[in-house]
Amino acid sequence: MKVAQPQEKIILGIDPGTNVMGFGVISVCGKNVSFLDMGTLDMKKTKDPYLKLKQIFDFTTELIERFLPDEFAIEAQFFGKNVQSMLKLGRAQGVAIAAALERDVPICEYAPLKIKMAITGNGQASKEQVADMLHRFLKIPNEKMQLAFDATDALAVAYCHFLQASRPATEKKYKSWNDFVNSNSSRVVRNTK
Amino acid sequence: MKVAQPQEKIILGIDPGTNVMGFGVISVCGKNVSFLDMGTLDMKKTKDPYLKLKQIFDFTTELIERFLPDEFAIEAQFFGKNVQSMLKLGRAQGVAIAAALERDVPICEYAPLKIKMAITGNGQASKEQVADMLHRFLKIPNEKMQLAFDATDALAVAYCHFLQASRPATEKKYKSWNDFVNSNSSRVVRNTK
Repeated sequence: MKVAQPQEKIILGIDPGTNVMGFGVISVCGKNVSFLDMGTLDMKKTKDPYLKLKQIFDFTTELIERFLPDEFAIEAQFFGKNVQSMLKLGRAQGVAIAAALERDVPICEYAPLKIKMAITGNGQASKEQVADMLHRFLKIPNEKMQLAFDATDALAVAYCHFLQASRPATEKKYKSWNDFVNSNSSRVVRNTK
Repeated sequence: MKVAQPQEKIILGIDPGTNVMGFGVISVCGKNVSFLDMGTLDMKKTKDPYLKLKQIFDFTTELIERFLPDEFAIEAQFFGKNVQSMLKLGRAQGVAIAAALERDVPICEYAPLKIKMAITGNGQASKEQVADMLHRFLKIPNEKMQLAFDATDALAVAYCHFLQASRPATEKKYKSWNDFVNSNSSRVVRNTK
């Protein structure tokens, strides 16, 4: 009898910013994950805001065409210093998302705290700690580790998405003790005395 | 001798929102402007935020393919109630901008106050007042005037862009009286007594 082999899946992680955009790509086959690539797009010298958005759009499209990802994971900050910087960040995220939407790649997003939590077990972990863990888990070549944290941050989103997707469904989170009791009535021993 | 005729130019105005997106299209030939179309995309029933973004992207792409605009003008609010709504608005703007970037249509953006000022002469004008002025200027068919203000708002952006582009270069804005004097030294009569 033939046993169905788990299919290879490519995850592209993106950390879009208005000055630097990071990307990280992993390949997943069942429970095995391997590092494919990571890098950054530096827009610090670009003054025109539309040119920046165009660069993000073109770069994301290029990455999608190059790696043909099955899934697209994005780091999405939900809180920021002020409304103007959030509008700019929203636009940067918007054009990156548009590149994925255009090619029908499913999108998932994760907050920075959740990503750090999933990778290091600590939502307050530093970028160095996240990078170190990824270096160990994914056996990233040393020369690639010289890149800016924007690259490891993006790789972290992709890895976080893999961890979330491979988490067994039984690992459900409960809102309260009552929620747990109601969802697990068969496990509750009632004191009938 | 042949006199060069002014070329026809199409301006597409967009007012992207997270629930409703408005569009307005005008045709400009020299100093003559005519109304082409306006309308809305209603996303109130769409719950999934990515589906909303996809709808904005597809709708904007469709408008660009239908009207082949030479210029793309967008209403861009720079201030909002909170960072989360600004991030959402930024994403909506981002995907609409991406659709224009993808087809190399030049983009201009205008703040709501500037648009109202350009059309009614009053930055605090109501949406009704803006719609009334456009109705008069552009001879919009009455049935089109039944549409939501999101449509007239978008048309207002396109019209504002036309006014800005056709404004003579001499109508320069000066930062201060000194700036005016320095830039117009020939017009200054010096009191040499």
